[in-house]
Amino acid sequence: MFTLDPRLAGDTVPVTRLALCEVRLTDEIAWPWLILVPMRPDTRELLDLTAEDRYRLVDEIALAERVLADLHSPDKLNVAALGNQVAQLHVHVIARRIGDAAWPQPVWGATARALHPPGEAAAAAARLAAAFAARSDADG
Amino acid sequence: MFTLDPRLAGDTVPVTRLALCEVRLTDEIAWPWLILVPMRPDTRELLDLTAEDRYRLVDEIALAERVLADLHSPDKLNVAALGNQVAQLHVHVIARRIGDAAWPQPVWGATARALHPPGEAAAAAARLAAAFAARSDADG
Repeated sequence: MFTLDPRLAGDTVPVTRLALCEVRLTDEIAWPWLILVPMRPDTRELLDLTAEDRYRLVDEIALAERVLADLHSPDKLNVAALGNQVAQLHVHVIARRIGDAAWPQPVWGATARALHPPGEAAAAAARLAAAFAARSDADG
Repeated sequence: MFTLDPRLAGDTVPVTRLALCEVRLTDEIAWPWLILVPMRPDTRELLDLTAEDRYRLVDEIALAERVLADLHSPDKLNVAALGNQVAQLHVHVIARRIGDAAWPQPVWGATARALHPPGEAAAAAARLAAAFAARSDADG
């Protein structure tokens, strides 16, 4: 039985659910920053997924990249599965711009946390959810 | 025509070539740190790959993870495609241990660079190449 790690839940708001992943938006304001969590129990590494789920995951990462590109026209996309602090497998998909708060370094630990004002993360998540739905229709 | 970015070439030694990726070992001594470079021209993002190549890539990432697990028994694997400094699509696959030089932070920028002594990176790459060959045979 899959349950979302409470640390991931605490730092994010829900966006949508895809075939494999729950998609969340982090509450950091400095970057459009999605987290994809495969809804599979006891999963820490890509290796813990079946091959079929790995293909689903990379398709959903690509979908998340398209959505961020549609909404934010980033200069670069960053994708990472680290899990040193929260072991549950989760994939960061982050829209980067030249000159952003961490550029050209990775975002982790780059700045003091600055969070969305109340309500704004949920509004951003709603826009993202609509973009996922539109893209899934167009691609599917 | 694919050509390896000279900055990637300069910081790494060759390990092996898989169906899609050239596999390289970084010259950093603090972590077993592979870089997988899809041998496709003009590729910056996962989105620039065909779906078939994306599936090949995730299979080759999983293979690289198995090889690192075989040789180094890591506590965690880190996987990332960032590309803020070198835009050519490349995927980091890094074996992490609790208490390593950056733990639990990501490795980028975590420490002053400490390189393998002369000849040692090539020897490590040869061990890795043998492990890739053994794993590729075992996995079919």
